[in-house]
Amino acid sequence: MSEIRRDVIKDRWVIVAGNRSERPFDFASGDDSGPCRSYDAECPFCKGNEDQTPPEKFSLSSDGEKECATWQVRVVNNKFPALDPSATTSSIDGDLESMMDGFGVHEVLIETPYHDQQLMTQEIDQIERILTSYQHRLNALNAKEEVQYVTIFKNKGRKAGASLHHPHTQILATPFIPELIQTELNQFSEYYRNHGRCLLCDLLRKEIEEDQRIILNTDNFVSFVPYAARVPYELTLAPKFHERSFAELGRERLVQFGQVLQDSLARLREVIGSAPYNFVLHTSPVASGAENYHWHLELTPRLTTPAGFEWGGGNFINPLSPEQASRQLDAF
Amino acid sequence: MSEIRRDVIKDRWVIVAGNRSERPFDFASGDDSGPCRSYDAECPFCKGNEDQTPPEKFSLSSDGEKECATWQVRVVNNKFPALDPSATTSSIDGDLESMMDGFGVHEVLIETPYHDQQLMTQEIDQIERILTSYQHRLNALNAKEEVQYVTIFKNKGRKAGASLHHPHTQILATPFIPELIQTELNQFSEYYRNHGRCLLCDLLRKEIEEDQRIILNTDNFVSFVPYAARVPYELTLAPKFHERSFAELGRERLVQFGQVLQDSLARLREVIGSAPYNFVLHTSPVASGAENYHWHLELTPRLTTPAGFEWGGGNFINPLSPEQASRQLDAF
Repeated sequence: MSEIRRDVIKDRWVIVAGNRSERPFDFASGDDSGPCRSYDAECPFCKGNEDQTPPEKFSLSSDGEKECATWQVRVVNNKFPALDPSATTSSIDGDLESMMDGFGVHEVLIETPYHDQQLMTQEIDQIERILTSYQHRLNALNAKEEVQYVTIFKNKGRKAGASLHHPHTQILATPFIPELIQTELNQFSEYYRNHGRCLLCDLLRKEIEEDQRIILNTDNFVSFVPYAARVPYELTLAPKFHERSFAELGRERLVQFGQVLQDSLARLREVIGSAPYNFVLHTSPVASGAENYHWHLELTPRLTTPAGFEWGGGNFINPLSPEQASRQLDAF
Repeated sequence: MSEIRRDVIKDRWVIVAGNRSERPFDFASGDDSGPCRSYDAECPFCKGNEDQTPPEKFSLSSDGEKECATWQVRVVNNKFPALDPSATTSSIDGDLESMMDGFGVHEVLIETPYHDQQLMTQEIDQIERILTSYQHRLNALNAKEEVQYVTIFKNKGRKAGASLHHPHTQILATPFIPELIQTELNQFSEYYRNHGRCLLCDLLRKEIEEDQRIILNTDNFVSFVPYAARVPYELTLAPKFHERSFAELGRERLVQFGQVLQDSLARLREVIGSAPYNFVLHTSPVASGAENYHWHLELTPRLTTPAGFEWGGGNFINPLSPEQASRQLDAF
């Protein structure tokens, strides 16, 4: 029996159609693992091949040293950037034609010197370095006056849009706030006006109390399948305390969050193998002063193919109920 | 050099980043063609296998006869429906949890009795039958009181979300107006309030006058790459005259539109081979009385993979400029 559920954070309907997972070809095999090596001579992200990338902008070594020869995390400009930091921010604002020059910063964060060292199985110290680097780039790029938003996202596997196997995260600073973030900001503001409380704080309290879709619940963080999940096994990871920006997260809690991220990936691995996935950090734009916003990370496995209905209408049909997905992920 | 362009109909930004098409793996091979046969014993949509589908709801024969043994176009309920016509329309409207029962109608329109007879190479008489059937289903389903919108969409090829090779169109009647359609309705209304004219009528006049992105321009229809195309070779097909609903299109113009659809598909074939694609008919919801809306069809080849930025932010990065796509499609 299908249900049509409202995502109150994204302000849109999702069709939850449990029976459709019986349909032929629906779930891809999901196995998208590459060759298992620590070094690939052709890979521009491998240690020793630093001259194959644009110049280093930031790095961290194992003892926390910055801009170092013995890097463990390294940030460079994307070799094929979607946006250009040297472009102007001039714009045309017409009724029929509106545009801005292609100003922006597009970086790649190389998560490890080693070709096959996946995020899920990294040492926790390395996870800390990666997440600290996220914070560093958020602060550095948000400091630019022209930047309205910094999107930090990971594409894991070819079917999730990754063009290189070596583990990396992308960072894209744009002169506009992405559509879905703007919708979320509006929803948080409206909820605050009506209730005087944070929308996600209230939602998390309800989720934890009902315990129908929770995967992990630690002292400070929770990982759960959202009520109106768009795709099978979609997860939201969020702090249980109110915090607007990921950049404000202190060191101790940052490590705790890294552990929840790794545990969530490990749960997914048990159920869907090495399926491709995307994750995207949703955090408050610095400039907006959106104090009511509450940062979270959205993790979406890519087992199904968005088709005409999703593409043309913007709504999703999820063939697996969030409660069923949660039960499967909870069994490990 | 990138540009950030506003889609004035969809009210969102698109990053047009021409240089990114040089990036490795960006364009998939695009060849998604199946075996070439007129009959497949395993295929539920092939002539002779009618007992493998749910009961017929509508059909057309070659002489226009309805509900006939010698069908040329046939409509049945989807065997794995996302929504159920026997569900109630009861709903819960909470601040943290909103839902509707899974009411709706999910049909499949079988475009041909023959397994491999692609839309692009159909006889024009058959195209007329297919498009007439679209109109019939729009009218029949919109007549149901609970239906807010009828989405007619085609998934061609596995990578576009099709699970069966036999040419077919999907029809999904929902108790809500899809997100993107609602946004378009808002944009059309606002433009009308400000200018007293139709947004798409004005946009088409400008496109035809500038002739930078037009692929086909006939007496009554135009096919063009939109200014803020989301993906390489995206096309919009629209009537040059103002018409709110596809269901109102008369027979003669319907045939003309069919020809423009086939010619557009043939142009794409020359440039990107048998690449997977989706198309979605955008037409006015019957109930809304949105007289300012102007129907059109959106055709999106699926050569690139939406990744974290698209998924998490709702904005697109198009690695091919619309003008370049148009020049390539125009060369044939």
